[in-house]
Amino acid sequence: MSVIRLKGQCDRRIKAGHQWIYSNEINTDATPLKQFHAGDQVIVESANGKPLGVATINPATLICARLISRSVDVLLNKSTLVHRLKIALSLREGFYPAPYYRLVFGDADGLSGLVVDRFGDILVVQISTAGMERVKSEIVEALQEVVRPVAILMKNDGKMRDVEGLDSYVEEAFGHVPEVVYLQENDVLFQAPVWYGQKTGWFYDHRENRKTMQTFCSGKRVLDVFSYVGGWGVQAAAAGATDVTFIDASQAALDHVDANLALNQFEGNANLMHGDAFEAMSSLIEEKQRFDVVIMDPPAFIARRKDIKAGEGAYHRANQLAMRLVAKGGVLVSGSCSMHLETNRLHDIIRSNSRQLERFSQLIYRGTQAPDHPVHPAIPETEYLKALFYRVHNNMGL
Amino acid sequence: MSVIRLKGQCDRRIKAGHQWIYSNEINTDATPLKQFHAGDQVIVESANGKPLGVATINPATLICARLISRSVDVLLNKSTLVHRLKIALSLREGFYPAPYYRLVFGDADGLSGLVVDRFGDILVVQISTAGMERVKSEIVEALQEVVRPVAILMKNDGKMRDVEGLDSYVEEAFGHVPEVVYLQENDVLFQAPVWYGQKTGWFYDHRENRKTMQTFCSGKRVLDVFSYVGGWGVQAAAAGATDVTFIDASQAALDHVDANLALNQFEGNANLMHGDAFEAMSSLIEEKQRFDVVIMDPPAFIARRKDIKAGEGAYHRANQLAMRLVAKGGVLVSGSCSMHLETNRLHDIIRSNSRQLERFSQLIYRGTQAPDHPVHPAIPETEYLKALFYRVHNNMGL
Repeated sequence: MSVIRLKGQCDRRIKAGHQWIYSNEINTDATPLKQFHAGDQVIVESANGKPLGVATINPATLICARLISRSVDVLLNKSTLVHRLKIALSLREGFYPAPYYRLVFGDADGLSGLVVDRFGDILVVQISTAGMERVKSEIVEALQEVVRPVAILMKNDGKMRDVEGLDSYVEEAFGHVPEVVYLQENDVLFQAPVWYGQKTGWFYDHRENRKTMQTFCSGKRVLDVFSYVGGWGVQAAAAGATDVTFIDASQAALDHVDANLALNQFEGNANLMHGDAFEAMSSLIEEKQRFDVVIMDPPAFIARRKDIKAGEGAYHRANQLAMRLVAKGGVLVSGSCSMHLETNRLHDIIRSNSRQLERFSQLIYRGTQAPDHPVHPAIPETEYLKALFYRVHNNMGL
Repeated sequence: MSVIRLKGQCDRRIKAGHQWIYSNEINTDATPLKQFHAGDQVIVESANGKPLGVATINPATLICARLISRSVDVLLNKSTLVHRLKIALSLREGFYPAPYYRLVFGDADGLSGLVVDRFGDILVVQISTAGMERVKSEIVEALQEVVRPVAILMKNDGKMRDVEGLDSYVEEAFGHVPEVVYLQENDVLFQAPVWYGQKTGWFYDHRENRKTMQTFCSGKRVLDVFSYVGGWGVQAAAAGATDVTFIDASQAALDHVDANLALNQFEGNANLMHGDAFEAMSSLIEEKQRFDVVIMDPPAFIARRKDIKAGEGAYHRANQLAMRLVAKGGVLVSGSCSMHLETNRLHDIIRSNSRQLERFSQLIYRGTQAPDHPVHPAIPETEYLKALFYRVHNNMGL
């Protein structure tokens, strides 16, 4: 097997447990990158020639190699995939009695570049690296052996693929995948648009946060901003909310909200607002509407590090409008899936809004991604989700 | 009312929402501190003479004034106490159907220096500042009016009291408080030693974390290190653990564990180890015992900022022993109540232990203090508790 050699000191992060190697860490005089094709497997050596393990390589990308193992005998092949899938499956089965979860979460499951969401006996796969694309058929075989699904959808249309030089496509790997699939989350039923929706069609990552939200929704008026297909708001409805308003810019998403409310026989009052979230919130404020629970869970306002400043401004504005819509003593749920927005930065945005609006707010819950989206302790990039819950009261002299 | 004037720029933290004023922030030429007695109420002015609000003052302490309100008309008296207790009570009642919770959590409830834990119709109060001690009888009256308890215990023996120049004592404010009181947490029954135990006798702060632990305890072998009266281990037992081992240095605490297991009719195997936790864990390792769930929730190893280095070493050693005791695919629960130990520092300690022991670990849950211990967004000192859950696997090539 070919070798890449690192520059001096560049093995430190790997030794601390991380699995990525950047292109500028490779000694390209000793081991030129142009000899490799995207997706090749190579042995990684430290500057002094000591083998550190096996990695897949993509000479064209900034993250140029991803460690598969720390043993030169363990390659990325069907056997390794089966082993790691079994370990991944056992984690999920330990937490969730029903087969609806993220089965594989990339690096944190030792499978960099691979995501698999499970909807009963249908799996939706997202491959984002050339290394994983190379073993696509082995992935399908390994999933068949470990999980025995009736169908697998390859939802290979993520933004990362272009960077890795991969085509964008959505297709069945085998079996028939219907336009919508069904799932349960916290015992609430949903349909998810796996072919045409966002990412895999569903976001399991907020499961525990939504469960916590359910504990205080009974009899309440709830607002779900950026609702997508209703993950938050429909669970609020199922937990006894009497009145739920959904805001989303996509009519297709709101049609799924409608279907998901019907699936759960919601008999309360539902209000679907199609349009820009900022404008819709402003009009609700003008109408003097207030809600006991306001969910502000926007799409990532910060996609790249350079967007941090503008993105933080968007989080500030969005959360300010949301806080204005919270009734006295109500709860603001503030989510973010931007890896680049630190949890404590979001917390400080809420502090600042509280002072500007003269509200007394208390952080009552700090939620993160669910256990089926584990975090690798040495790979901070595997941690991205937050959901901060605040009880918002009127100024009480303080 | 008397006035204290701040030095220039020293109103910034207050304007950002914090409520503490340090003694070196006061312009003592304009407003000498020696004119005040500990517990007096004063008007706080910015450097340019603008009133910022009312505070209680203690000229002898570093945190020399604590803001009561931002209005010069709102003082710390029975009326303010009743108002804030009602707001505090409504938060807890919104989350917990049964009357077992922390009713008041100091600054985060707008009541700096006051803690109240509720055990049904018995309340345990801890006062830690001269300002609150001054209104002790108003506190008792306000609690009677808002909560209507049958008895109140003043557990006024915290370490802070000495700093504030206050005596240490434990006494009934009214009614009869028995030696142990009963409580429910996550539907599990407990007795707590309110007169002679740690703090108020019970730690409600880990409630949500223990509830999460319960989801994966059925049929499992569990180890509860630094068990105190069994908050974690007894809840694991109630959730179906077949075998629970408790380690604590206090025989009195272990006697309460015994009683708490009996209260919940535990029929599995309980093992109570009396002694030093580090030694007990080492002997379990020697005996090659392994546990599916290991709870490492020590007392604060870092009490003051200057203890950070030594304390981090203790967390490292304790968690390393704990990780060695986790069976393949099991869960390590790592808690800390040290405000000075950052969550991510604890996370890094686990990462480091994983590498040293060649384990593959995944963070599956980041827990914090329960909603009855709210965090004030502008007062970071109100946030102290963490519970990180890791699934620990044998080295799987990575």
